[in-house]
Amino acid sequence: MQADSGGAPTAGSGLSMVGSTREDVGRLVLACPDRPAILAAVVSRLAAAGANINTFDQYSTAPEGGRLYLRSEFLLKDLPDRLDDLRSRMEEIAEDFDMQWRLEPATRRKRVAIFVSRYEHCLLDLLWRWRRGELHMDIAAVVSNHPDLEAEVAAFGVPYYHISVTPDAKAEAEQHQLDLLVGKVDFVALARYMQILSGEFLARVGAPVINIHHSFLPAFAGAEPYVRAHDRGVKLIGATAHYATEDLDEGPIIEQDVRRVSHRADPEMLTMIGRDIERTVFARAVHWHLEDRVLVHENRTIVFWPG
Amino acid sequence: MQADSGGAPTAGSGLSMVGSTREDVGRLVLACPDRPAILAAVVSRLAAAGANINTFDQYSTAPEGGRLYLRSEFLLKDLPDRLDDLRSRMEEIAEDFDMQWRLEPATRRKRVAIFVSRYEHCLLDLLWRWRRGELHMDIAAVVSNHPDLEAEVAAFGVPYYHISVTPDAKAEAEQHQLDLLVGKVDFVALARYMQILSGEFLARVGAPVINIHHSFLPAFAGAEPYVRAHDRGVKLIGATAHYATEDLDEGPIIEQDVRRVSHRADPEMLTMIGRDIERTVFARAVHWHLEDRVLVHENRTIVFWPG
Amino acid sequence: MQADSGGAPTAGSGLSMVGSTREDVGRLVLACPDRPAILAAVVSRLAAAGANINTFDQYSTAPEGGRLYLRSEFLLKDLPDRLDDLRSRMEEIAEDFDMQWRLEPATRRKRVAIFVSRYEHCLLDLLWRWRRGELHMDIAAVVSNHPDLEAEVAAFGVPYYHISVTPDAKAEAEQHQLDLLVGKVDFVALARYMQILSGEFLARVGAPVINIHHSFLPAFAGAEPYVRAHDRGVKLIGATAHYATEDLDEGPIIEQDVRRVSHRADPEMLTMIGRDIERTVFARAVHWHLEDRVLVHENRTIVFWPG
Amino acid sequence: MQADSGGAPTAGSGLSMVGSTREDVGRLVLACPDRPAILAAVVSRLAAAGANINTFDQYSTAPEGGRLYLRSEFLLKDLPDRLDDLRSRMEEIAEDFDMQWRLEPATRRKRVAIFVSRYEHCLLDLLWRWRRGELHMDIAAVVSNHPDLEAEVAAFGVPYYHISVTPDAKAEAEQHQLDLLVGKVDFVALARYMQILSGEFLARVGAPVINIHHSFLPAFAGAEPYVRAHDRGVKLIGATAHYATEDLDEGPIIEQDVRRVSHRADPEMLTMIGRDIERTVFARAVHWHLEDRVLVHENRTIVFWPG
Repeated sequence: MQADSGGAPTAGSGLSMVGSTREDVGRLVLACPDRPAILAAVVSRLAAAGANINTFDQYSTAPEGGRLYLRSEFLLKDLPDRLDDLRSRMEEIAEDFDMQWRLEPATRRKRVAIFVSRYEHCLLDLLWRWRRGELHMDIAAVVSNHPDLEAEVAAFGVPYYHISVTPDAKAEAEQHQLDLLVGKVDFVALARYMQILSGEFLARVGAPVINIHHSFLPAFAGAEPYVRAHDRGVKLIGATAHYATEDLDEGPIIEQDVRRVSHRADPEMLTMIGRDIERTVFARAVHWHLEDRVLVHENRTIVFWPG
Repeated sequence: MQADSGGAPTAGSGLSMVGSTREDVGRLVLACPDRPAILAAVVSRLAAAGANINTFDQYSTAPEGGRLYLRSEFLLKDLPDRLDDLRSRMEEIAEDFDMQWRLEPATRRKRVAIFVSRYEHCLLDLLWRWRRGELHMDIAAVVSNHPDLEAEVAAFGVPYYHISVTPDAKAEAEQHQLDLLVGKVDFVALARYMQILSGEFLARVGAPVINIHHSFLPAFAGAEPYVRAHDRGVKLIGATAHYATEDLDEGPIIEQDVRRVSHRADPEMLTMIGRDIERTVFARAVHWHLEDRVLVHENRTIVFWPG
Repeated sequence: MQADSGGAPTAGSGLSMVGSTREDVGRLVLACPDRPAILAAVVSRLAAAGANINTFDQYSTAPEGGRLYLRSEFLLKDLPDRLDDLRSRMEEIAEDFDMQWRLEPATRRKRVAIFVSRYEHCLLDLLWRWRRGELHMDIAAVVSNHPDLEAEVAAFGVPYYHISVTPDAKAEAEQHQLDLLVGKVDFVALARYMQILSGEFLARVGAPVINIHHSFLPAFAGAEPYVRAHDRGVKLIGATAHYATEDLDEGPIIEQDVRRVSHRADPEMLTMIGRDIERTVFARAVHWHLEDRVLVHENRTIVFWPG
Repeated sequence: MQADSGGAPTAGSGLSMVGSTREDVGRLVLACPDRPAILAAVVSRLAAAGANINTFDQYSTAPEGGRLYLRSEFLLKDLPDRLDDLRSRMEEIAEDFDMQWRLEPATRRKRVAIFVSRYEHCLLDLLWRWRRGELHMDIAAVVSNHPDLEAEVAAFGVPYYHISVTPDAKAEAEQHQLDLLVGKVDFVALARYMQILSGEFLARVGAPVINIHHSFLPAFAGAEPYVRAHDRGVKLIGATAHYATEDLDEGPIIEQDVRRVSHRADPEMLTMIGRDIERTVFARAVHWHLEDRVLVHENRTIVFWPG
């Protein structure tokens, strides 16, 4: 579970979206070994505090002996004043059930740093959704190894950091990036960032990193997926959003989508079609991450879809 | 809620599918006005009885003042011997919360009557899935206004009733059908049955009726949807499974799907493409109905998808 | 056939996209009564001129007695100098076969006016794609009945005209719009323009008008489709791009797409999901129109897809 | 190009389907180096013979110096009596243009052998579509390494050959199969046949072999794709129909499709969902192969979709 990132839940969707602008919507996310009494323990704590449960998604990885993942949104009048009380009620059971858990107001916004190189479609899509209120987050920084998109980003009132990355000075560049990020962001979004982050960077950044890969993984992991898709003659091309791990393109998959193509589509056209899939898949992954809908079990994700 | 049909839950899917062959998987379905304490009341009843909750889907139609719909599958050792105890625990709270509810072993199979005319694709698809073990139901009868498919159905060991329907003797035919059905089936599946059932029939049959319509309703309600889709030049054709009501093609929608078509597709080809959509959409609707995943709120459905 | 709009073909996709930056790619579009000798007549004219045919899409509305629609892209060395010759070769057969036809260099760009109100997603998507080189067009103007998006549009270097539309002075406003458009644009794109254009406007503007409607027409024609989709409980929502005609939401459909939704999605969330469908469907329709891939037969379109 | 299989075109779809029952619909398929004069040469031969071209699909693998693939359906009165004349007209140009070509009446039916093991869904789907007239082919034999499906196949009036395949006697079994097939079928369809065919078998059978693989290749090539899809946590599962080659799961892809799944789907459920994708993708591939819509260029296919 990626709960230790310090990330805070933000606005929900659907029913909860209505409530999300209100101060009194809370969100509980937890993971623990599955045991018979656990749901009753959790639900009764919420009920005793007067919470009205709006959504209550749960998944157990096995009928018996599995691990339980749970996410709930609830209404509790005067939530800001009641949070301490509710948290102490949860603490009563957390140790017994060996829970990892987090309970926060839905109004709390996650802070993100967006990494980008020169392709702007995934970045622009996030900025635009953020401005129109679809993505309840604070953008701490856009970080790029190129200066090209500075003016574009400035128009959104977001700070832009150009940090060159050269083979000789990669460690130095990563240190520069870490100085900007550590302790200041809740997650990092790689919006077609064309540099490979080192294992050390991922270990030290202390926050989940979401990447968008331009193929339906595990097919065409690695470089030039559209060229290879064309060479292999596939009839569908796709994109995959996943958490970055040290094993390139092997991290837990959050979301994927595909579109049909024909023999007529050359790599240039696949690239154009692919941009639409990439930005949509990426935005969904960020959206769900922001709302704490994505929980990680081993190398897979549990995603409690909003709609 | 269509809970009064006497229909019983059968096999689940995913995790619950594993358990479904076991005697000790139970299923609870309920609907009631949403109130803060309700989930705690239900979950604690299940916990007190020793049940281990596998799935727990719930939906409230509004953040406050809505109606709650809930479906849970759970493991309870020696379920057949424990059912009475568990039901009486539920009865303790059912009246206070004004619940409609049903609690049954997942091994109980719903009984169905399938109506068909001459197009056999939806019927055969159900029969194949049933024989292969995908659909945990007992087929009480196949009823047709034509004799054409008798041998086909006989090969599956299912009784076939040919009941002619003429304009002059429609009431008589429906009476004949009702004699076969009332009290003997839990639901009726209209597998491209080309006769309109009267309001009186629907009122008297006392069981939900699932219909498949060959368009993406509400577009092209009524007759000849593929011809009209062609005339209107749509780029997608579809099918809709819904509960039949007295208002033709207006009942609650259970499932829909579409496929892309081009200008090249004439009505004959749309019909061919449409058959694949129809049978798949219909089979999903029946599958979900069998597992009590489809709850009706006003003229809409809540569908707790299996996978 | 919308060939009389004076619109000129621009860049193609796929193979032709490669060639489209070259001066020597030409495009022929024609419609006429289908007769046995016609393809031979056309192909031999192209061959006699030395053209190398890259794509040759054709469709006849009936095996015999139908109407033929044809679109071809070809390579012809020194095309600009050869156009007159090629056109006179076509004229030799055009009258005999009763053809409507157009033959132009693929480098010629159509001029568009984009109409918008306050929702910016369809507009921005077009502007992004245009700036990135996906849409080979010249944007003559953005016209809006609100001043809100002026700065946004200015950042793209595109002129913005704010023309208020009030019930009392609608005719005056339309006259103002016509003054801007007539003879200066090849087509108009309504990017969620929330005013109904009069039949007189459509008659006088002298160019095709592409509209995006936020439902899978013919379902939910008219106002508030997402609210009505929610009320009807559909499981798919969609969008439709079509040529505007005097009959509101009844014009020839160019493109449609849908996405799956569940009972959890309220009208607000359907609207959010719908925005992604709208902008994608709209951009595809504009893209295909720009490349002369969309031909109109009665109230339907023939779309020669690029990929 | 797989034109040397001796396979004959059968019924078309859409417009051509209407004509396909008529004796006077012909089909021309060809491949050759792309040169400027070629289309004119072909079209004028057809026109000179009096043929009315209904469809005329072509694709060149490069704007210059590519290879041309072409497929056309046409009406020619008294076709059976005119075939020799038309073929000799084609022969006039075939050598000059270095063409591989085939010209046949659309009424000629390809002969197929279907291989199957124990999973019956792909087999039944083909048999059912064949019986209802969707697939215009003659089924020469169903061949299985198990006796299980004999009665099922017999009900369709199709001969069933049970040929056991043991590790010790695989060569012998393949010889037995070849005795049944060589010279008697135009193609082989592997409907979830769970044995690997040897390179020698593929070389000697002298007919294209279509296989259905239960993943979206190239992801999860090899064994147990649904288990591996579950372990990798993909959000889409799929199936791929391809021509079998000596390199397992590496042959030219004809068709692919996918469906969305969630974390809830265990391998058993993925298998169930996958069956629907497999049978649909497989049936499409067979359908298009029957109508000579699938042409092979290097390791990719050109598919001229029907609708």
